[in-house]
Amino acid sequence: MKEVMCIIRLNKVNKTKEALAEAGFPSITCRKVLGRGKKSIDIALVEAYMETGEVPPTSYGENLSERGRLIPKRFITLVVKDDEVKTVVDTVISVNSTGTPGDGKIFVLPVEEVYRVRDGQIGEEAI
Amino acid sequence: MKEVMCIIRLNKVNKTKEALAEAGFPSITCRKVLGRGKKSIDIALVEAYMETGEVPPTSYGENLSERGRLIPKRFITLVVKDDEVKTVVDTVISVNSTGTPGDGKIFVLPVEEVYRVRDGQIGEEAI
Amino acid sequence: MKEVMCIIRLNKVNKTKEALAEAGFPSITCRKVLGRGKKSIDIALVEAYMETGEVPPTSYGENLSERGRLIPKRFITLVVKDDEVKTVVDTVISVNSTGTPGDGKIFVLPVEEVYRVRDGQIGEEAI
Repeated sequence: MKEVMCIIRLNKVNKTKEALAEAGFPSITCRKVLGRGKKSIDIALVEAYMETGEVPPTSYGENLSERGRLIPKRFITLVVKDDEVKTVVDTVISVNSTGTPGDGKIFVLPVEEVYRVRDGQIGEEAI
Repeated sequence: MKEVMCIIRLNKVNKTKEALAEAGFPSITCRKVLGRGKKSIDIALVEAYMETGEVPPTSYGENLSERGRLIPKRFITLVVKDDEVKTVVDTVISVNSTGTPGDGKIFVLPVEEVYRVRDGQIGEEAI
Repeated sequence: MKEVMCIIRLNKVNKTKEALAEAGFPSITCRKVLGRGKKSIDIALVEAYMETGEVPPTSYGENLSERGRLIPKRFITLVVKDDEVKTVVDTVISVNSTGTPGDGKIFVLPVEEVYRVRDGQIGEEAI
């Protein structure tokens, strides 16, 4: 089993969820994250966001000058069987690829065991 | 060493923390997450939550119609020695199992190394 | 490739980011987390934080009595090549080590694959 962690744009969350559900992967977990990207980051804005959860409106534009670039992102993660990783990756890329920097990254991590809390079911059946 | 990631119900956080602390695992990290579950999700509600951090009160009920189902969850994670995984898993299941869907999942991931920032201590001693 | 997950103090985020960027690692992801630490936790304060995202001002002090200790932390994670882990770990420790408990922890997890969403680039080149 693998954990497929996807860091994507804010405005792609809905389409990504819908595409994953259609592909047979409705079980996902979402979080707000901040700051993925190789470009320089305005630390003051980052700190404001970390403290208050809000970002000054002007910083939302990802086409501002490098100096002012701040990038709130969405993090979607799901655990799937080994042979399902390719489908998940392809689905996420097909929905999220715009061909421009900032489209995001996908990381695949090994998962050694899964338990369903309800009944203690273990392994792939518990996913 | 392993990371034990637990996705559980909101109303089980306190009891889970207390049970883990009693079992000898006081060191945990908590996050808010959203949307774990195989049932259909109301995307509009998800988006509202992701943007504002708040969920319309009516959506908190997990027994609403499938269509309106939105599931804020809590994510608790901790890193433990290999031979402690079973105790942690059993503790979390014993507190969180209600026998109904939505009780949550536990994922076990391999951790290759741990460092204590204070003094650079490495390995199991640093946990 | 490895994921290097760092749990650090609130007031070290800026310096950590700057030090990582200077060391050649500008691409990081940040999240708010809560509660790492071996000391006892005031569950009521934790719950208040989890619900509202805010912590009563008095609890920010990490030198309060053990009973009232609540610890909002910052979680910074990045994915790097195997031979870059040491530099990242050393950088984070050098900035964050104060020699007192609560400085944080660093966890290193294996990452099996990385994809760049923009163009489907796979592997270390996609980091």
